[in-house]
This record gives sequence, C-alpha cells and structure tokens, in this order.
Amino acid sequence: MRIDIITCLPRLLDSFFAHSILQRAQQGGYVEVVAHDLRDYTADKHRRVDDYAFGGGAGMVMQIEPIARCIRTLQADRVYDEVIYMTPDGERLNQQTTNTLSLRQNLIILCGHYKGVDERVRELFITKEISIGDYVLSGGELAACVLSDAIIRLLPGVLNDETSALTDSFQDNLLAPPVYTRPAEFEGHRIPDILLSGHEAKIDEWRHEQALERTRIRRPDLLEP
Amino acid sequence: MRIDIITCLPRLLDSFFAHSILQRAQQGGYVEVVAHDLRDYTADKHRRVDDYAFGGGAGMVMQIEPIARCIRTLQADRVYDEVIYMTPDGERLNQQTTNTLSLRQNLIILCGHYKGVDERVRELFITKEISIGDYVLSGGELAACVLSDAIIRLLPGVLNDETSALTDSFQDNLLAPPVYTRPAEFEGHRIPDILLSGHEAKIDEWRHEQALERTRIRRPDLLEP
Repeated sequence: MRIDIITCLPRLLDSFFAHSILQRAQQGGYVEVVAHDLRDYTADKHRRVDDYAFGGGAGMVMQIEPIARCIRTLQADRVYDEVIYMTPDGERLNQQTTNTLSLRQNLIILCGHYKGVDERVRELFITKEISIGDYVLSGGELAACVLSDAIIRLLPGVLNDETSALTDSFQDNLLAPPVYTRPAEFEGHRIPDILLSGHEAKIDEWRHEQALERTRIRRPDLLEP
Repeated sequence: MRIDIITCLPRLLDSFFAHSILQRAQQGGYVEVVAHDLRDYTADKHRRVDDYAFGGGAGMVMQIEPIARCIRTLQADRVYDEVIYMTPDGERLNQQTTNTLSLRQNLIILCGHYKGVDERVRELFITKEISIGDYVLSGGELAACVLSDAIIRLLPGVLNDETSALTDSFQDNLLAPPVYTRPAEFEGHRIPDILLSGHEAKIDEWRHEQALERTRIRRPDLLEP
C-alpha cells in the first residue's frame, strides 16, 4: 500500500511515522507513506497556499491551484483508489471504513488547515471526505495520522501476534473485555479468580460476558441490529 | 493550563507539539505540555512496563505499578482536575466535552498501548475515559494529541483572528458553510455570485442557509432536539 499525504505542515507528521508500528510497517515494506509539502506546488513567490475568503469573515482558505497541481502530479504517476479529504463535516470514520480502506492500493490524503479548502477542491478532486470525530482540530494533519495508523495496523503482517488486531474493540461490534497483568494483587486489589483458574473455556466465556456487559452499559448502540 | 501526558513512547509526541498552533500556545505561555516516559517509573531492570495477560490470549497489558507511581508523583506536586485515559471504549469525544475540558487547570492524559492497561488502573486512578472515535489505533498517543489539540486551540489567546474558532463546525450544532478563495474562476468553475456582491447581510444569510442545508444532508442527527 502507498499513502500520499498532502499538507502545508509536513514536519508535523515526522515523529508519528518515525516510531513504533508505523516505522516497522514502512521498514518491513508493508506500506510507503510519502508526505508532500503543498508549498512546493504553489506559483506564489512567497510560497503562500492560502488566501482570504470571498465574501469576508475570519479564517484563511486553502487555494485550489496548488492542491490541483499536487494531486495531478501524483495521479500522473499512478492510479489512486481514493482522494480523501480530512474534514469535520465528512463521513465519520469507523472500523468498517478502516477495514475497507486497508484493502486499497494507493490513497491520497489531503489535510485541511485554517478554515479548510476552497469548496471547488472538494467538488473536483475529492472522492471521499472523512471526519475522525465531532470536534475541531487545528488542522487535518493529526486526523491524517489517525486514519493512516488505523489503516496500516490492519495490513497483513504489520502486527505480530502480541498486538493482534482480532480481539480489538469494534471488530465484532463489542467493546473489549477488561484485561489484567502482574501483580495478581496490588495494594489489596486482586484480579478476578477465574483468570487464575487455568480453565480456558471458562475464561473465554467470562471474557465474552464481560465484553457484552461493558458494551451494554457503555455503548448499547453497538448492539442494535 | 498544564497537560501531563503519560506514555511509553514519548518520542512519538515530539513533532506534534513542536509545530504550528501547539508550539505557539506553549511559547505564548497559554499551556504547558509535559510528556512523561512510563519507563522512568518502572522498577524492572529491563525497563519493561507491560506483561502477559492473566488468563492468556494475544496482546500485552500495561502494568499498574509504573502507572500508579507516575500518577502519584505528579499528584504530589499539584491537584489535577482529571486523570484521563484514552481508550476506544471510553466516552466519545465531542465539542462540548472539549469546551468543558478547556476550562480546567491541570490534566493528566494516560496513553494506552498494546491491549491497554490493567483494569485496576481504570478503577483506582482514572476519573474520565475518552475515545476519539469508533476505531482502533496502535496506541493512545495519537488520541492524546488529538484531545490536546482540540482543547488547546480553544484556550483564550491561542488562536488569532485569522483562525477564529467561533465559526467552526459544531460550535453552533451546524456544519460550516462552503468557503472559497482566489481565483474566482478555476478552469471554468466560478464561485457563487453572491460572494462577490459585497452585500454583507445577504452573504451571512446565504452562509447560514448553506450551513443548514449541509447539516441536513450530511448530519441530520445534529439538528435533532
């Protein structure tokens, strides 16, 4: 898989892709993540990529021309499955969308900043608009990292058994059950006895019940048909 | 405001807090963000902070002892309004929660990793569990950055007029209207004439209609009483 991220703040992305699972995924050849500085695609001599909004009002707007030039340059080299724009008014990201996107070959992710991009960018170039949640961030860069991380960890081979994705929350529409590790007793607080029983089937059953109960209390909406 | 982030991967946070609005917010004295390496709080000679789950199964679990030591060390120095754990089964973050948290003085944010933290950490130390959305990430670090960013940009003085938060999506339960900037015509695609009319009241009215229409189509749930 290849992910191209278009941003006016490429340095912001550095540490995320240089550590942990995302670093291992790139070194292992499972994914290639390339950040593109939008300022390299502007014809403006001050390298500006934004301008005032037509009609007035607070907030700068990202211009269509540099974005168009960048997307077309990328598309000249390979076919992209989706050109995604990260925006709070997009379709809310969930695990299903993440699963689907993890099956694609090439993705472009455009990060908004300031008041967002010129509306014509969305009409002419964007194939999918995604929001990571109902809150506003200072830019789309973090959202692009969130989307990339959620996708990349699902690519076959990226996670080893110790970090297996199969028992994660949402993968079976249930929240994950509680987990415990050593010590078995901490300042008088003991782990549930069942977990020390060695009885695998009973432990599985207990975990399923706990997952169901937790989902019922915290997220009953996940259990609706 | 002060935000203490507890993580076993502090380097992951570096580039994010070193750029853009979060950098300016720290330099301007509006917020102090301090990352704490959980490995500094373990008694283990290999600096491990995780162990196998009781009862078996894939995935490592973060131990209670280093986390307890770290939180107590911080709490000895100041009073914290909340000790937040980032987890996919937490309360889903929205703009209201973000607004509320932006009024607090001191926050601790604990980042989960692997299969999450020992359940007793949640029972004994955590006052608020937050999820940034219905998807799973490789760790809580990105989620902690998302929460911090959403909060910090709301602190008075952090945003200048050009990036004003008042007209953002969700602040009035409406999505933001479309925005446009130069050029007025791009490859035959013109901006709406109204925006060139110079008639401020009519432009405001148009924007409100567009915001309402966009919300109706994309997020009718926001309009429900």
